[in-house]
Amino acid sequence: MTQTPATALLNHLAVPMARVNDLIAEHMRSSIPLIPQIGQHITQAGGKRIRPLMTLAAAQLAGAADMEQATKLAAAVEFIHTATLLHDDVVDGSDLRRGMPTANRVWGNKATILVGDFLFSHAFELMVAVNRLDVLDTLSKASAKITEGEVHQLKTANDLTTTQAEYMRVIGAKTAALFEAAMEVGGLVSTGDAGQVQALATYGYELGLAFQMTDDALDFAPSQTQLGKDVGDDFREGKVTLPIILAYAAGDAEQQAFWVRTVQNLKQSDDDLQTALVYLRQHDALGQTLQRSSAAAARAKAALAVFPESRIKTLLLDLADFAVERSH
Amino acid sequence: MTQTPATALLNHLAVPMARVNDLIAEHMRSSIPLIPQIGQHITQAGGKRIRPLMTLAAAQLAGAADMEQATKLAAAVEFIHTATLLHDDVVDGSDLRRGMPTANRVWGNKATILVGDFLFSHAFELMVAVNRLDVLDTLSKASAKITEGEVHQLKTANDLTTTQAEYMRVIGAKTAALFEAAMEVGGLVSTGDAGQVQALATYGYELGLAFQMTDDALDFAPSQTQLGKDVGDDFREGKVTLPIILAYAAGDAEQQAFWVRTVQNLKQSDDDLQTALVYLRQHDALGQTLQRSSAAAARAKAALAVFPESRIKTLLLDLADFAVERSH
Repeated sequence: MTQTPATALLNHLAVPMARVNDLIAEHMRSSIPLIPQIGQHITQAGGKRIRPLMTLAAAQLAGAADMEQATKLAAAVEFIHTATLLHDDVVDGSDLRRGMPTANRVWGNKATILVGDFLFSHAFELMVAVNRLDVLDTLSKASAKITEGEVHQLKTANDLTTTQAEYMRVIGAKTAALFEAAMEVGGLVSTGDAGQVQALATYGYELGLAFQMTDDALDFAPSQTQLGKDVGDDFREGKVTLPIILAYAAGDAEQQAFWVRTVQNLKQSDDDLQTALVYLRQHDALGQTLQRSSAAAARAKAALAVFPESRIKTLLLDLADFAVERSH
Repeated sequence: MTQTPATALLNHLAVPMARVNDLIAEHMRSSIPLIPQIGQHITQAGGKRIRPLMTLAAAQLAGAADMEQATKLAAAVEFIHTATLLHDDVVDGSDLRRGMPTANRVWGNKATILVGDFLFSHAFELMVAVNRLDVLDTLSKASAKITEGEVHQLKTANDLTTTQAEYMRVIGAKTAALFEAAMEVGGLVSTGDAGQVQALATYGYELGLAFQMTDDALDFAPSQTQLGKDVGDDFREGKVTLPIILAYAAGDAEQQAFWVRTVQNLKQSDDDLQTALVYLRQHDALGQTLQRSSAAAARAKAALAVFPESRIKTLLLDLADFAVERSH
């Protein structure tokens, strides 16, 4: 079995990543046992730790003298992401995340909200320890953008008048902004010049868009690697993602009435997901979504042209391809 | 009608406070209308803005050259407080705050959680704009402490084995830590020396304890100035505050069984609040709580001895008395 580009990146950065994991464990310590319990639950269920890996990769690509500052920022980025996941699970009322019961399911909404706040505060403590105001500026602005994007998403949920531009703005804020900041701060603590730092930020932003658009397509057509993932979660919640925006725009009156009933009014019966898949295929809505994802990945790769060839650059180029190809 | 010390402080600091209010409005702006809507709702219902006033007062007492930096930090402190209130209302499932419907009641839990996160992120943006890492260090540590205190409070709720020491630790973290940081950062952007900054921090911490202990007594015996406040809210929620800890410890077996049933098991009938008040009075539990509050206020005042006499010092001394006396 060949390893995915995400795993290859993790293997390449295993040494600094072990230090990141130590920092995460250290900053989750508390004399209140509930805090490390919930914290460990979410970080263990949290998947591949792609965002902290990006901070480490950016620092290495832009020639950081050592990884000490980057590891702190990588841990901070993961804490911001984790805090967001905890609050999202409460906001969405989710029961499962990656096949595990969510923290709100196990410990209730109260503790989950508060531990999210705790992790968010500790993210700032880690950032302050790096002693760089430009880094704090980048990450505090990214945090504000993420939450603004999530509030915007509340508004676009169940709203079929959501435009493609609005969709791009939402995913740009709620997903791509943290990928962008994760890369940018890695660059800021390296020896890279302003142009290189900007290139890293662009790579991160476009990669974030690519990952999210692929995710939104995969929700309707999970790939073989996504074991245990349910099909149509977004559809059942009435999330208006790009595939639905495209199919709704291309559909006739009957099809539009179907989307209004199922997504806007959330009146769904058992067959509706199958019908939705038929309409999505008819207008190639998933194919078009993946084309956009592919274009974003190409822009991400193009941004890295300012860097000379290296192992870490190859791994980041592969990761951009993987953002789209994991849909196969 | 004579003005309260809190109002006198506000009048004295009206000019910089107007600038704080402008900053608050400015940083709540968003193209997503829900954000300023919820933000204004909570800041308008938020009461006397005592915490930002403390930052301004600390800066003035310790001889700040101008109030520009202190106003930004005052706005940041209010944003941290406001974010906490929004999350608290969701955590407590509250319907009313100061006689107004809570944000979660009007806009739902989802938007309320996310706008809390938005305000918290903007607090950090405001702090970063002050360009002082010592200030960021103080406020990020205070934020972490607040959330830790709130999680701890979840554990002590309905738990009659909560000790007085645990109670002091909870209120020290969830209330006094932000009062302390609000004063400390005002001092850090002034011309005060390290001893003066420490004195301001001590004043803030002890004042926070005094305010919270008085609040916990007032929950059972509202003063005439607290119009529209319900009696016994904490009791009905089973919050184990100092009055209950004292009455439980001093009660006989029958009284202890009463507290276990009502506070620990939350099995309450209509007469129980009256019975609780009888037991609290019998053991002078409210009086003892107010004595502790008074001792904390005295420690707050004593800390200010390092400063020469001035109008702002007199106002802060009066505020410490008011923290206890508003119970009359």
